[in-house]
This record gives sequence, structure tokens and C-alpha cells, in this order.
Amino acid sequence: MRVNVGVIGVGMMGQDHIRRIAGVLSGGAVVAVTDVDAARAEQVAAGLPGARVHASAEDLIGDASVDGVLVASWGPAHEEQVVAAIRAGKPVFCEKPLAPNVQACQRILDAEMAAGRRLVQVGFMRRYDAGYRALKAALDDGSIGAPLMMHCAHRNPSVPPYGFTTEMIITDSAVHEIDIVRWLFDEEIVATRVLRPRRTSHAPADLYDPLIIVLEMANGVLVDDEVFVNAGYGYDIRGEIVGESGTAALADAAEATVTAAGQRASRVPVDWRDRFARAYDEELQDWLNAVAAGTCTGPSAWDGYAAAAVTDAAISALRTGQRAAVFMPERPDFYAKAQ
Amino acid sequence: MRVNVGVIGVGMMGQDHIRRIAGVLSGGAVVAVTDVDAARAEQVAAGLPGARVHASAEDLIGDASVDGVLVASWGPAHEEQVVAAIRAGKPVFCEKPLAPNVQACQRILDAEMAAGRRLVQVGFMRRYDAGYRALKAALDDGSIGAPLMMHCAHRNPSVPPYGFTTEMIITDSAVHEIDIVRWLFDEEIVATRVLRPRRTSHAPADLYDPLIIVLEMANGVLVDDEVFVNAGYGYDIRGEIVGESGTAALADAAEATVTAAGQRASRVPVDWRDRFARAYDEELQDWLNAVAAGTCTGPSAWDGYAAAAVTDAAISALRTGQRAAVFMPERPDFYAKAQ
Amino acid sequence: MRVNVGVIGVGMMGQDHIRRIAGVLSGGAVVAVTDVDAARAEQVAAGLPGARVHASAEDLIGDASVDGVLVASWGPAHEEQVVAAIRAGKPVFCEKPLAPNVQACQRILDAEMAAGRRLVQVGFMRRYDAGYRALKAALDDGSIGAPLMMHCAHRNPSVPPYGFTTEMIITDSAVHEIDIVRWLFDEEIVATRVLRPRRTSHAPADLYDPLIIVLEMANGVLVDDEVFVNAGYGYDIRGEIVGESGTAALADAAEATVTAAGQRASRVPVDWRDRFARAYDEELQDWLNAVAAGTCTGPSAWDGYAAAAVTDAAISALRTGQRAAVFMPERPDFYAKAQ
Amino acid sequence: MRVNVGVIGVGMMGQDHIRRIAGVLSGGAVVAVTDVDAARAEQVAAGLPGARVHASAEDLIGDASVDGVLVASWGPAHEEQVVAAIRAGKPVFCEKPLAPNVQACQRILDAEMAAGRRLVQVGFMRRYDAGYRALKAALDDGSIGAPLMMHCAHRNPSVPPYGFTTEMIITDSAVHEIDIVRWLFDEEIVATRVLRPRRTSHAPADLYDPLIIVLEMANGVLVDDEVFVNAGYGYDIRGEIVGESGTAALADAAEATVTAAGQRASRVPVDWRDRFARAYDEELQDWLNAVAAGTCTGPSAWDGYAAAAVTDAAISALRTGQRAAVFMPERPDFYAKAQ
Repeated sequence: MRVNVGVIGVGMMGQDHIRRIAGVLSGGAVVAVTDVDAARAEQVAAGLPGARVHASAEDLIGDASVDGVLVASWGPAHEEQVVAAIRAGKPVFCEKPLAPNVQACQRILDAEMAAGRRLVQVGFMRRYDAGYRALKAALDDGSIGAPLMMHCAHRNPSVPPYGFTTEMIITDSAVHEIDIVRWLFDEEIVATRVLRPRRTSHAPADLYDPLIIVLEMANGVLVDDEVFVNAGYGYDIRGEIVGESGTAALADAAEATVTAAGQRASRVPVDWRDRFARAYDEELQDWLNAVAAGTCTGPSAWDGYAAAAVTDAAISALRTGQRAAVFMPERPDFYAKAQ
Repeated sequence: MRVNVGVIGVGMMGQDHIRRIAGVLSGGAVVAVTDVDAARAEQVAAGLPGARVHASAEDLIGDASVDGVLVASWGPAHEEQVVAAIRAGKPVFCEKPLAPNVQACQRILDAEMAAGRRLVQVGFMRRYDAGYRALKAALDDGSIGAPLMMHCAHRNPSVPPYGFTTEMIITDSAVHEIDIVRWLFDEEIVATRVLRPRRTSHAPADLYDPLIIVLEMANGVLVDDEVFVNAGYGYDIRGEIVGESGTAALADAAEATVTAAGQRASRVPVDWRDRFARAYDEELQDWLNAVAAGTCTGPSAWDGYAAAAVTDAAISALRTGQRAAVFMPERPDFYAKAQ
Repeated sequence: MRVNVGVIGVGMMGQDHIRRIAGVLSGGAVVAVTDVDAARAEQVAAGLPGARVHASAEDLIGDASVDGVLVASWGPAHEEQVVAAIRAGKPVFCEKPLAPNVQACQRILDAEMAAGRRLVQVGFMRRYDAGYRALKAALDDGSIGAPLMMHCAHRNPSVPPYGFTTEMIITDSAVHEIDIVRWLFDEEIVATRVLRPRRTSHAPADLYDPLIIVLEMANGVLVDDEVFVNAGYGYDIRGEIVGESGTAALADAAEATVTAAGQRASRVPVDWRDRFARAYDEELQDWLNAVAAGTCTGPSAWDGYAAAAVTDAAISALRTGQRAAVFMPERPDFYAKAQ
Repeated sequence: MRVNVGVIGVGMMGQDHIRRIAGVLSGGAVVAVTDVDAARAEQVAAGLPGARVHASAEDLIGDASVDGVLVASWGPAHEEQVVAAIRAGKPVFCEKPLAPNVQACQRILDAEMAAGRRLVQVGFMRRYDAGYRALKAALDDGSIGAPLMMHCAHRNPSVPPYGFTTEMIITDSAVHEIDIVRWLFDEEIVATRVLRPRRTSHAPADLYDPLIIVLEMANGVLVDDEVFVNAGYGYDIRGEIVGESGTAALADAAEATVTAAGQRASRVPVDWRDRFARAYDEELQDWLNAVAAGTCTGPSAWDGYAAAAVTDAAISALRTGQRAAVFMPERPDFYAKAQ
């Protein structure tokens, strides 16, 4: 069975997912697109034989030929589109963030619980990365004992000169570690702090970069996450879990080692697409397979909600300089861990 | 456009390619299968909605719904099947070896040249591996200067207790390095030697394992290739090119490093599927894309011929203990490098 | 010229320095020893041809044949012994800590300034480690730009079941990072915090292990230092400096890589002597050379004072859970950086 | 007890050993020097308080104050000097080669056997390198099973533009691997071949560089040794032993990893002194200790003889292009392995 996908939002991220469905993955086809920029939607559709352009997300969701909806619009639009898809009973893959605040996320949870079954997968692709999967395996097989700490670094070469705020270091970048540690340790984050190292002179004028985000898990595990979005040298994701009897760390991902001019060197990924290409592929293939099978797996709306609750707390911690508790209700049974 | 594939031979390799087309790659579907074991063909087809079972390769090739033929039968059957596909004007992906000897390979070349266009891609998947591609990039961008030597190691954990002969160390294992060095250096191999290190006591009784195959390229580059098919500890592929000003080596492919009990360790792949999973995916996607586009890329029948010529020489060198020249005609213009 | 050394305190550390002077280093000889345990002093002297045993530190310092004094007694005795050596005009190498509190350290500074020339070298041996020297070189040659952060880990396999307190994680272990970051960045530490990750169940009952010590340098560089003294798996010292344009990290120190049973592994040092053997050698050779030359180099009494001031603040931070400022006077001209 | 050393030959190597005895090692002093260049001898002695200059090696050996003789003259002079030291009953450390041919080596063996006790240590310093010691430990503790092969590479950045011959690639460079594999495997080398890869264009006009030396051990272990003396990029020594169940390889020796400008890099040693500094220290300290103890350990005159026998065979193999057997008598009981 081929899964017919409708894509809402065909900017960089949406186009990348379309490329993936059309040319890399198995069992899917893009049959409909829509975008706030109608011309862009037309242009993208032109490269997709048989794909329709819809005037609105609503129309696309209502299109009977669409089996699953992929939301890659900008964050503020997610809530309405995801809720509409849920109400139409259609599986929806939503890029992170699920929604810009916890209230909006809550309304998505309510809609999904009302629908009576999981329909939403959130785009936290790191859960599909072979490196993080190996860390989880090391945790699960007892190789390193009970986890105590995790040290993370998240380095981007640079951010655009305008429009990238210090809060976005948390909401756009650190959110990936926020999700991945919840998944690795199978625990919620209960509090956070934000430390300010010396500021790089290479950041845009009103950006405080880098930050160190400290996350406290419910079981006491402490996570420190260096997030540095103007690191210059490349895209570098580091992670080391320290357990009672050992540690597990992400390995370097280079394909080759070149030794010349007095140095033995391997390349660092240039950007997130380079580093996580396979994880994006696996993530979306997993979604296509789930849609075809009539199931729903992967990061849930609850995970999207939890990420929003933690980023809210971290933004508060950034502003006050103090430890901020994470406010989060009990996890609904609907989103029970074993599913 | 969807490429409808007919698969000849549904043993381990054939089934793996079918799994790939059905569940991993984009743009293909398996619509027909055949096998010398008809029951096995029926069983495999049962898992493929709409796939037909043909009584013979000939029938499958003649099936009008088949756009491309994938040959994964045993080696002695390749020639007849590949030639039949060529004569039917259908693109054919043929697992290595192209054919068991140079005479058979020559007849395939003749058929393809008579057809007037390239139709054959041979299954040398290492050319699609990110590690070897990085080595080729290092050669091509001048990072290490003109190449002088390459050191290779090809280690399998074990081979079956019966039926794996010393010659097969060359024809089944070393053939991968034979092809990859031709591709890396864009040169033919002109002579070979086989050295015999101390024999492992873990090999089956009549198997001489390991061997060191020495390959001389036309431009003087010397390749030494340790081939050790009962290495026990895992599947390990090493390669280092030494150039006039530096070296480029395959990096280790581990996802994580676990430090415990006094050791910092990373895993070694367990087998060739583990190590080259992505390369197999890329190889077959490339073929599907080429079939859809009406072109033919990747390793050619000439590459299959050249591999056979070199393995013939290496088997002779194994028997005599002497250097053996490779007998090979001029590369036909039809198979000119730039295509 | 041979430097005749008198050693005060011949416990584990003192004996190790004696072994080094007698059998590893150049230009020194141990001619006198003393210890609170007179029998132990006699026993150690028996293995040193011509060495005298003195009844007290005072006697040893007064021994005309003693060119330099090595203090390896327990911390509370250091002040009196170091001051006595200074007053006798003799160069003194004092194991860390210089003295157990800042007041005692201040009295040592006063004595040395009164003497009018530097006579004290403190045993911060990491400054002599090839790894840290390479980090400093990377800072100094501009390889990574201005430093912003440093991530450290300091892991011991275990501590004795009794007598090792949580404060000692700071005074005995973290003190090494406290000194080394002052040296690396050529800046003072102005404040500190102590974070408490989940506690390991492998620590003795009243020990809170591990801790994360956060150090703020005067120029804003932020250092996080995981100190974990029951890490179990080995002795592991990690350090990565993050600069504006790159990072510099301590490399693993293994001599060999063993690949077997599915793993590629290298050993982790078993203890601090294993890891820092060369640094201890270099440190003491440097002292012997300085004594022979009539100079004084290496970590100064001021460095010992600063370490005490920071550990005081860190102990306060440990108790309160709050950020604690470091109280420290201006660096006296006498201890000006360029010397 | 202080060992008084007389040094014959104070060129680069001799001066380096003098620096080591005078400023790095324990328990030795240089009390006498001689050199064919008397002015150079005077100049070197001027920096050594109390050292005498002798007009000849004979005089130096006869100097009653000399406890041990260090021979660092040019190779053709070794035989006469070493034999004279033996006849004087004085321990002698002789730089490699022991003598330029097997006949001369044999006369040294004869003299030592006539003396009735071992007096000669030959300067094969790699046996004291932590990396090779770790390989030997991995062999001895069964980590990798019975050895089958070893892959070596020996790369120098460059050799002088004049005077370095192709034979010297064997006698000066490969001789180190020739000795180390005898020591690692505790077996003699019985035959050798020399393969010629493509020649680098960076070598002086009459030098054929690189070579691959193949060594066959008595137990069948096969060693391939790439020796490349104009590798340009640095001094790089590689070694991997392949056993029946695993491999052990020399690790990279870098102190730090610098990540910048898209690359993660560590430095390669610049020359042999950089790479083997510690091994040279350990080697000579071992000799001083042995002299003080009245014993003799380390590489023996037999090891020097064996190296000469193998290099003779390798030079023959270089000339003929054929496999050359090593001619060597039975190992005399006097040089039995367990000593």
C-alpha cells in the first residue's frame, strides 16, 4: 500500500521531506501541497507528477486522497493544522515544535485524546539516530550501570545575522537535547537552570551565545548541555552519559581519516542535514510505515507538550538566572509509556 | 514512474534485495520472481502483493510488465540470464561475480556491445560506501598527492565449515578490493601475487586462511590486501591509501564508545550487511533511478570482466606461488571511462 | 652539581618522590629524611645509602648538607615546615595543598615575601603534563580563538571506604582542575557553584559523589568540572576547552588498541600514578634543575594560596547550594605573572 | 653508585645520549669522550664538568675511571671499539648497527663468548617503547590468539638530498622493524622479499622510495613493512599484529585533539626523537642500571648479529627481486633466550 501524503508548508524543511518521500523512502508519495506562499506551492508541485495544490491547510486535510498529513509550516500555525488533521481522523507528522506554548500543546493533547487514538508523531528525529540508539542500548543492557549524569554539546557553525534570539537557542536548539534525554532516561525533566559562559564575539549583537542549559531529571540525573550556535568550525553534537560503572558517548561520525602536513584529521559535519540525514530518513520511513499499518509510533504529542513545558521553564531560568521548576501535569494514561 | 523489477534467484542475496526494494528504497516494486527452487519462489512471492512467479528466467525476462531484471542466482547461471536480458533490451542488475570466468564475461560484453548501449550494472556495492567515497575524494582533491600504495584488510568472522575453498577467498572476498582499487585509482591491475602468512588453526581443514593478495596497478601503485575469512572477532574492512604527501584511511564506523571495566571500546560490525547496509541501499537506488531515467551507471560489465581477469591471475598466483600477469585486452571504446 | 634533598614525610607520596629522585631523575640525591613515624623514616633511609634520619623537620631543615627541602607530610603540618625552610633560605617543594586554609597560606606568602625571593614550588603536577601543555599551546597559538568554556571530568576508580568526605572531593580532587584552569587561562577564579547529580550507590554511605563544580573565571570563561571519585572503571581525566573558533581536548593516552570479540578497545589508566607518571617526573626534575640553578619556577605559593581560596568558596557553595564568590586580595607584585 | 660513562663518538646521536645521561637519567655521569673530530670532542667536553677528552677509543676504554662505554661512532668503527671494550671487561652500549656486516658481528659474538659473560647492549630502543610493550603484552596474555601476520609502516618525513641510498632504507630504517618483530614474536626471520611500489617523485634522484619489505618468521608469521623515508607529512610508525582471534595495533600518540575549521585533528610526530624520546630514555636508564648492578640486559650482540643477517638478505632481495633466505647459524647457548 502506498501512503499518499499531503504536505502543509513547503519551505526548506517541507521541501526536504518531499525530496525524501519522492526519492529516498519506500511506500509514500506526495499527492498534495499547500503553503501560505501559493506561488511556492505551485512551484514545488510542478516537480511532483500528479500532485495537487490546495488553497488552504483545511482543504488539503479534507482531500480524500490524502492518507497522512505532514505539517512543516511555521510553529504558530501548527496547532490549528494538527487539530484539524486529528479531527479529520488523519495521521499527522508535525515538525518540532509541536506548538509554540504549552497551552496550544494542551489543546492538541485534548483533541487527540478526544479522538481516542494516537494520530500525531512529532519530528524529534534524534531518536532515530544510530548514535543515540547505541547510547540507549548501552543504558538498557547494563553496560554502564545506573545513569547519573549526561554531558551534551550542541554546536552550530552559525545562525543568521538577524532574527535569531537568545530564547531560540533554547526553543530551536536545546529542545533536541530536552527531548532526547527524556527518551534516553525514560524520565521527565523537573527543573532547569541556564548558565552564561563568556559570550563569543562572533555572535550577532543581541544574541547571548553560548549558553549552558542544566536539566534535572525526576530521578536525579543531571544533564549539562552546552548550546553554542556560532561555533564556527562546523556542526558538532556531543553526548556522554556517565553511569555508576561506566560511560557511553556518541562517537565521531567521520568516514575517513586524512593524514597530511603533520596532522591526522577527520572532517566534522557541516550542518544538521549532514549529521542527521539518516535519522531524518528513518524517522519519516517509520511514519510512513505506521500510517500504512494504521498505527502511530515515535515521539508523541505528549513529548511535544513536555518539550514545550521544559523550554518554558528554561526561558524563565534564562531571564531570572535562577533555577526554574518545570510545571507539568501527570502524564495521561492515554500517553502511557508502553505503547 | 515506478520501476517494476523481476528478480531471478531468491536466495539470501535475492531476498535481501527484495526487502530493500519493497521496504527501503524509493520508486521500485518487485513484480516477478523466479528461482531454481520453485517452492522458494512461491514462498517469497507470497509476501509480495501482486508479484508473479515465473517458471524460468527466460519467462521472467519476457514478462512485459518487468522493466528491469535483477540477477541474484548462482554465478554459473549469470551469463545466460544477463545475455537474455540484454537481448530483450532490458536493464539488468547482476550480483557479483558477473560470470565465473573471463570467457563468459566476454560473451556478456559482446552481447552488450551488440545491443549498442549499456544495460548491465554489476553489484560492486563498495563504490557506494561513504568511506570509499571519502578516500576517492581525498585522492581527487589532492589532499595526499599522487597515490603510491594501498594497504587493505578484509576480515570475515568465519566461513561455513564445508564448501568454502581457498580459491573463494579470492573470488568471493578479495574481488571486492580488486574492484574498488580499480575504481579508486582509475587504473587496471596488471599483475598479482599471493603470499601465505601462517595459517590460522580456526579455519576448516582444507582452507588456507589468511592470504595476502598483492596487486600491481598499471601506474605502479602497489596494493596489499590481507584477506582473512576466519578472523573470529567480527567483520572488519580496513583501507589506507598512501600518497606522495599523505595518507587517507577508512575510519572506524562505530556509533558510540563505551568506557567500562578499564577499557574504552567501540563495536566492530558483525557482518557485511551490518557494515555495508547503506552501500547496498545506495547501489540499488542508483540502479532504480537509472532504469527510471533510461540510463545505465555504476559498475559496468567491463568492471565485471576485469575483476574476473584479475581473480583468474590471482588463482594462478595462489597455485604457483609466483607473480602472475593479468591478461586483459584493451578496454573497448564502448566502455570508455567518461560516461 | 648534585642537589641534596631532605624529605619531610615519607608516606606514599614521599616515598614515590624519593624513588623518583633516587632512580629516575637526574642531578638529585636524597640525603636526609624525617617522619612523624620514626620507624618508617628509619626503614626508608635504610634503602638510601648515606641518608640520615632526623628527629624533626626542624633538624632536617637545619642540616647543612640539605640543599632543598621536599615537604610530603600531611597538610596541617605544611605551614610550619615550609615557613621554616623559607626562613632557613632553602628552596622547598611542597606537595598540594600548600596549607589547609587561606590564613595559613597567607602566612607562607608573608614569609616568602619577607625572604625577598621565591623559594616555594607547589606540587601541581598537571602543569607538566604533555596533554595540558598541548591545550595551552592551542590556546596560545590561536588555534581555537578566545576561550569561552572548559568541560572537565575527573574520575577516580574509588576512594577508601572510610574517611573520605564530600569536602575532600573538592580539596583533594577538584583542586587539580582549580589550579590547571588558572594556569591555562592565566586568570583568577572569581566564583563557584556546586551542582549535585544523582548520587552513585557505590559511594561510601556519607559521601555525596559525584559533584559538578562550576568555576567562573575573571574573564567570564565558565568551567564545569565533573568530579566522580567512585567511577569504578578506571582513572579518567577529560578536558575540552571551547574557544570562539574551535575546541582543544585532551586525547586518550592509550599505547595500543586491541580488537577482539566484537570490540575495538584501548585501556584506561588505572590510577593517577599511571596517568601522570611523566608529569610527576617532569615536575620534580624541574625543581631539581631550579634548585641547582639557584632559581625558582613552577607553581608558586600564590598558586597554592589561590587554590585554597577557591576550595574555600567551593566548600561554601557545596553547603549552601548557592553561588559563592571567591575572596582573594590583589595578586602581590612579588608574584607577578611574568617571572 | 654512580656509573661513569665514556662516550666514543659525539655526533648527533652521541650528543643526544650525553644530554640524556647529564640531564635526564638517574645514576650516570659522562666522564670521558673521544671523537675522530678532536675539536668536536673538546667542544662537547667543555659542557661536561670534569669530563676528559681522550685521543682515541682505545685510550678512553683504558681509562680506569670509565665504568661503561657508549659507542656512538659510525658503523664501520663499531667492531674494533666494542671488541676492545669487551676485552677490557667493560660493559658497552653500542648504537645500531652493531657492525656493518655479519662477519664483523660474528667477531663481536666470539669476543663476548670468550669473555664468558654478556657485556654488550645494542641500541634497539623500540623494545623500550610503551606501544610495542603493549603489543607484546597483548600477545603474551592471549588477547589476540596466536599471531599470524604483522602489518608495519615506517615513515620518515624526508632524508638528506645526498648520500642516502636505497640500501639504507633497509639498513637504517627497516632494521628497526627487523629487530622488533624478532622480539615481539620471539622467533627468527628466515626469509625476506622486497616489493617496489610506485616510486615517489619527492625522493632524491637515485633513491627508490618507498619499499615494502616482507619478512617470514620461523613459525610462519608474515610481516609486511612499508618503509617510506620521504613521506613528507611527518614521522609515523604503524604496527598491527593480526592473531587468530584478534588484532593489536600501536595507538596514535597525540596529546590533544584540536577541532577547528571543519576538522578534528591531532598532530603526527615530527621525527624519531619526538616519537621515541621516552624509549631512548628508558633504554639508556636500563643500561645504566644494569651496569650499576653488574648485569647486562636488553638487546644483545646476538640481536645485532641477527639484524645484520636479515638486512644482508633483504639487500640481496632488493637487488634480485626474489625471495632471499636468511643465513644464520644456530643461536649459541650463550645467547639463550631466557636470561
